[in-house]
Amino acid sequence: MQHINGERLWSSLMEMAQVGATAKGGVCRLALSEADGKGRDLFCRWCREAGLRVEVDGIGNLFARRGGKQPDHPPVMVGSHLDTQPTGGRFDGVYGVLAALEVVRTLNDLGIATRKPVELVSWTNEEGSRFAPAMLGSAAFTGDITLEAALAAADAQGMRVGAALDAIGYRGARAVGGVKVDTYFEAHIEQGPVLERNGNVIGVVTGGQGIRWFNVSVLGQGGHAGTVPMDFRRDALVAAAEMVQRLERIAVGFDPRAMLTVGQIAIAGSSRNTIPGHVSFTIDLRHHEDRAIDAIEQAIRAGLDEIARRRGVQAEIAMVWNSPFTPFDSACVAAVANSAAALGYSHQEIVSGAGHDAINMARYCPTAMVFIPCAGGLSHNEAESASPQHAAQGADVLFHAVLARAGAETRTASC
Amino acid sequence: MQHINGERLWSSLMEMAQVGATAKGGVCRLALSEADGKGRDLFCRWCREAGLRVEVDGIGNLFARRGGKQPDHPPVMVGSHLDTQPTGGRFDGVYGVLAALEVVRTLNDLGIATRKPVELVSWTNEEGSRFAPAMLGSAAFTGDITLEAALAAADAQGMRVGAALDAIGYRGARAVGGVKVDTYFEAHIEQGPVLERNGNVIGVVTGGQGIRWFNVSVLGQGGHAGTVPMDFRRDALVAAAEMVQRLERIAVGFDPRAMLTVGQIAIAGSSRNTIPGHVSFTIDLRHHEDRAIDAIEQAIRAGLDEIARRRGVQAEIAMVWNSPFTPFDSACVAAVANSAAALGYSHQEIVSGAGHDAINMARYCPTAMVFIPCAGGLSHNEAESASPQHAAQGADVLFHAVLARAGAETRTASC
Repeated sequence: MQHINGERLWSSLMEMAQVGATAKGGVCRLALSEADGKGRDLFCRWCREAGLRVEVDGIGNLFARRGGKQPDHPPVMVGSHLDTQPTGGRFDGVYGVLAALEVVRTLNDLGIATRKPVELVSWTNEEGSRFAPAMLGSAAFTGDITLEAALAAADAQGMRVGAALDAIGYRGARAVGGVKVDTYFEAHIEQGPVLERNGNVIGVVTGGQGIRWFNVSVLGQGGHAGTVPMDFRRDALVAAAEMVQRLERIAVGFDPRAMLTVGQIAIAGSSRNTIPGHVSFTIDLRHHEDRAIDAIEQAIRAGLDEIARRRGVQAEIAMVWNSPFTPFDSACVAAVANSAAALGYSHQEIVSGAGHDAINMARYCPTAMVFIPCAGGLSHNEAESASPQHAAQGADVLFHAVLARAGAETRTASC
Repeated sequence: MQHINGERLWSSLMEMAQVGATAKGGVCRLALSEADGKGRDLFCRWCREAGLRVEVDGIGNLFARRGGKQPDHPPVMVGSHLDTQPTGGRFDGVYGVLAALEVVRTLNDLGIATRKPVELVSWTNEEGSRFAPAMLGSAAFTGDITLEAALAAADAQGMRVGAALDAIGYRGARAVGGVKVDTYFEAHIEQGPVLERNGNVIGVVTGGQGIRWFNVSVLGQGGHAGTVPMDFRRDALVAAAEMVQRLERIAVGFDPRAMLTVGQIAIAGSSRNTIPGHVSFTIDLRHHEDRAIDAIEQAIRAGLDEIARRRGVQAEIAMVWNSPFTPFDSACVAAVANSAAALGYSHQEIVSGAGHDAINMARYCPTAMVFIPCAGGLSHNEAESASPQHAAQGADVLFHAVLARAGAETRTASC
């Protein structure tokens, strides 16, 4: 089995990590910032050095195509994103872009011509920290958002995506989307602890889990903390606290794939010596199966209603987002699994918990992802860390999956 | 038994409620605002019409003395405050001031000369909504805060108490404090639901309960809501929610006099799809007995430690305020109880849950309070409500308690 050049990949990762490097060892390369522009410049230079011509589309997505024996065949596309969270790490996104570059570099080293073109891609504004929504560039490509809406998205200072693209010189001439894609592969750190816990190197990602978001409002009775005896109270926070407990029990008791998070909670007009009269909180619910999410939602509604009735408060539950499970293409998933098996790398199926450009692409063309472990499951954090060995092994799997889909036609050098 | 003039009292209450009246039927008469100035003007006019000369001290407290047969004897002082919360009601504070005025008006009506002088008082800035600390005027009088510090207290716009006094013309020449006071009586709405629940008209207040304030910090592990399985989590909010539940159980299980409120809670850097890593919340703990507060604090510390250890989070509990139980004078309390009994008004002993100027005065001179019910226990609210009958009955009790302490020397008219 051929291997990519792990040292070269790691060296590129570390060089890119200097662009927007933070004092704590992380990276701040916000979408379309000056640092993002410099990161793009570096990636484009590396592409040109690998013999590729870079095209930029109207939303700033970067494409670099290595031609195939059938030059008009839709390409096998491979990539991820270069932008980061404000206190991001050195691997989220950029690992997938540079692993893809390493695939092309290795094809070049080995003198492999592919039947289908292989096209590197770096998507604009995957993180969504500066511009909402997240995964903007891939959504514009797939048509999930119009180009007009994507260009009009503004950051907290009111700067729009269009102006930000112009400012760093990355509003390109290529049309956004509208082309056929044979396959999309994306390598990424897991951003969770499962591979590490199980001692596996490769996550064969079978899809993106379903997500539902709810807002809960709990209306009790406010009052003076010093004058209302406990048995008179209809304290909205104590009710909400019991609900948070119940939500945890519902998720833990369902099955190991259920994830439920109360990420925000607020007391209206809160004061240290006032009994909370009105509390609102959020629920983020995820599972691999939409039917499971349905069942958990039912349990949530019943549980919160029971608590509200018993405590004499009113609870309202409003669903604010519903994103169903997104399955990846079984042939592409098999290509990833077969590559990992052929390379002898321990691997397991896994469902992506986070959003990725691949989730958008999966509704557009056959798609799969390759996960590698990150230390302690930590991500969106300056301490985000992955090992050189895992990075190389993930890129090996990506290389063979791409090669399997693109078709090796000739080999001009042996390895 | 003599009675005060309930119709006159109610009419004065309703007339004063027009000063700073809000659209929702409440009152906004923030301390030392233009409305407070107009309320003071009205009160001073009524005092003069009752034959009293008003003195203003250096912190704006208003005093209006009705002389006694022993003119140099320390006075029986009676009053409360005219300032309100921003969305306050028509009774909190002002009821005590106008019930005191009604005591003097009734003494005049009945031609009663007292042995000791009776001095009406209206304290500056009891509420603390505009200037911190609350109960400022009485604290300056008793020496709990220096006059310099009291005058230097600033509102949110940076205006100081001294300048605000000058602006409404109520910085007076009388020295602040430094005089002997025979007794202090204060009538007030209960601001809680106990009298109403028990069907009693009069609360014989035996003291102000002890208060301890704590800040709790819970440190867990943040993470991505979609990638960290439930059994990997050390969610600071779920831990805090269990703590809030435990705190409620500790208070409810202790005895009916224990009151515990978590009035504020915050997730650091909260986001809908991020597992809370750091949560802080407040505890307001009150009881009539300091030993009980000690015992509850021990139970709180043990309970929160147990939850933190089991959940793998760190919890830190810091006490930020400790105000011990303030007993009222037993003879003054007896004067209130005896008056209520003699008048045939249903009454019960009660401990004040809220802060009052009387709590400051209790450390300065023999003190007691008279509570009347307020509808639903609602206070600090525009819907705050008390009945004309209860207002009159409370003033009757205040009248006879004052008379008992001041000593009726002569009666020039019969009733």
